[in-house]
Amino acid sequence: MTREDYERRMERAGRAAADAGLAGLIVTPGPDLVWLTGYRPTAVTERLTALLIAVGSRPRLLVPVLERADARQAAGAGATEVLGWRDGEDPYAVLAELLEPQRRYGISDSAWAMHLLGLQRTLPGSAYASLTEALPMLRAVKDAYEVERLAAAGAAADATYEQILEVPFGGRRECDVAADLARLLVEHGHSQVDFTVVGSGPNGADPHHEAGDRVIENGDMVVLDFGGLLDGYGSDTTRTVHVGEPSSEERKVHDIVREAQQAAFEAVRPGAACQDIDRVARKVIKAAGYGEYFIHRVGHGIGVTTHEPPYMVEGEHLPLVPGMCFSIEPGIYLPGRFGVRIEDIVTCTETGGRRLNNTAREMGIVS
Amino acid sequence: MTREDYERRMERAGRAAADAGLAGLIVTPGPDLVWLTGYRPTAVTERLTALLIAVGSRPRLLVPVLERADARQAAGAGATEVLGWRDGEDPYAVLAELLEPQRRYGISDSAWAMHLLGLQRTLPGSAYASLTEALPMLRAVKDAYEVERLAAAGAAADATYEQILEVPFGGRRECDVAADLARLLVEHGHSQVDFTVVGSGPNGADPHHEAGDRVIENGDMVVLDFGGLLDGYGSDTTRTVHVGEPSSEERKVHDIVREAQQAAFEAVRPGAACQDIDRVARKVIKAAGYGEYFIHRVGHGIGVTTHEPPYMVEGEHLPLVPGMCFSIEPGIYLPGRFGVRIEDIVTCTETGGRRLNNTAREMGIVS
Repeated sequence: MTREDYERRMERAGRAAADAGLAGLIVTPGPDLVWLTGYRPTAVTERLTALLIAVGSRPRLLVPVLERADARQAAGAGATEVLGWRDGEDPYAVLAELLEPQRRYGISDSAWAMHLLGLQRTLPGSAYASLTEALPMLRAVKDAYEVERLAAAGAAADATYEQILEVPFGGRRECDVAADLARLLVEHGHSQVDFTVVGSGPNGADPHHEAGDRVIENGDMVVLDFGGLLDGYGSDTTRTVHVGEPSSEERKVHDIVREAQQAAFEAVRPGAACQDIDRVARKVIKAAGYGEYFIHRVGHGIGVTTHEPPYMVEGEHLPLVPGMCFSIEPGIYLPGRFGVRIEDIVTCTETGGRRLNNTAREMGIVS
Repeated sequence: MTREDYERRMERAGRAAADAGLAGLIVTPGPDLVWLTGYRPTAVTERLTALLIAVGSRPRLLVPVLERADARQAAGAGATEVLGWRDGEDPYAVLAELLEPQRRYGISDSAWAMHLLGLQRTLPGSAYASLTEALPMLRAVKDAYEVERLAAAGAAADATYEQILEVPFGGRRECDVAADLARLLVEHGHSQVDFTVVGSGPNGADPHHEAGDRVIENGDMVVLDFGGLLDGYGSDTTRTVHVGEPSSEERKVHDIVREAQQAAFEAVRPGAACQDIDRVARKVIKAAGYGEYFIHRVGHGIGVTTHEPPYMVEGEHLPLVPGMCFSIEPGIYLPGRFGVRIEDIVTCTETGGRRLNNTAREMGIVS
């Protein structure tokens, strides 16, 4: 990614802002800023850092003066005017000077409330909308370069899964298997591990249970959901394995989830609404009598972060567009007993879906 | 920390909110939530998690339903009513149902702008203030337990510094020394390393330069600023070392910073204003002719996170109170040449300051 690549992204963002009736975008540290400039401050702190893409102006990057030299080293910073503010100055007054009063701006979802309140206080006539609400499409459609980065991250996660099937499960703690997952993700090229869910037996029925001290037993179902960043792009895949031979009920529930995942995958095509992908999976699970145990949306977008628009959820009417990349991850969670989830990252192509995770979706048997 | 300990903190927070004329506090994942409940979600995502401390009511912890089981395991969650919201529901509508319209609430500094905007849209008559603005004292005064946690983190950082003096500097890259710092912090008990600044030669003149590929040379000044979390409490210390014998100018600049740090430390006493601590250090550096090269505030509070109120900065009139813990870290930064910073964590006692970092503040000589 060169300065020119980032410059084109910022120009595109400015045009999208204008089309949405916004006077500009206020982008704070996190995935939007990385995507637009390549700049990732070491820490996100109370000191305001903000990229302002004002429609019709050159982008300006406002940073604490003590971080200005580091900010200037980001590949995309050369396409901005880098401005410093000093401790003791009011950074909201400095930023507000660059804004038009009585206008509407998009702002990063994860901008600190403290900063937004500072701007609202300083420019009371201004209005703000989160980027997910105002410009959900800004980063949602990936170009070929980005799809290949996501495919590479997916391949590394797949290699991790293939190897985790070989480690012992029974008699070890969830957190030990989670440490194996983290190690393998790094061995396969991840620079950052974001989550390593190992939900064994009843813990698998909590979708976001991470990994604890529970000792995995023979006969347990185990949900494995793991991912992170490789070359700046995210991985996120889930497989559900079993320690030894499953019961017929466990097999049945797993088959239903696999069928739901397959059906949702087959529904991916340009023009389908995001909520349709959720509905297709949900319909399969409901028809099998487990509807009340599928307690989350079926998917989320992925790119330079692991959760971003588009969201595959009831009420999301955005149409799928070639280049969108997102998870399809139906699950069934039986409280106090076990859970099953199967997740692939999928990209929408002109002709349908393409999976970026390609390990077997059949239940893995571990020992 | 037991359920009862957290319960007392939540009660105290509720009283502080009432005293400040707030209807309550909205606390999102991060240091406030950890401090009040012990709950730290694996990831902070677009799904709303919020603790509501409404004056006169039992605290309620609203979480995505798929994280409810994990949230319930936090020590302080037992003192709250844990409520789940489901994908597809509007979490702002769910939270707004629990708020009083036309009232003012405190909200975590780092709450996502997206969430604040969602609340403002759902309850247009409500008003919000960041916790740093509305309740800067909420976590600022540490009890004996907390001061001892910070002292333990400081001692581990001190042990790290003692050992880093023994590693080779000349001929190695900054990032290699940074890796040594990170390893030593972990060896001395840190569960999390937040920053390992190694600013050699001209890089030392950028206060927040992290650590790069520059090869450290004989004759370099090197700023070392490192810290993280140990048992949930932060460390943050800076020493400036020299590879081989320093020049007389380097020694002089280091002496000025050390004198400024000492003077600011000696100014710590109950009732002094935060800005006085900054002024005392700045006066020493200005008098020596280097005022324009001290480009940041002299300090920040520390607790369950490494930057929090009280801030030792011009304009901060809060009086020091026994139990406050904060950094004192003056510096001089000569662009293109070198930088010097010396930083200790200090706590205010009834009789003056007590340092929680106690390594020699004289310039360390490394090889």
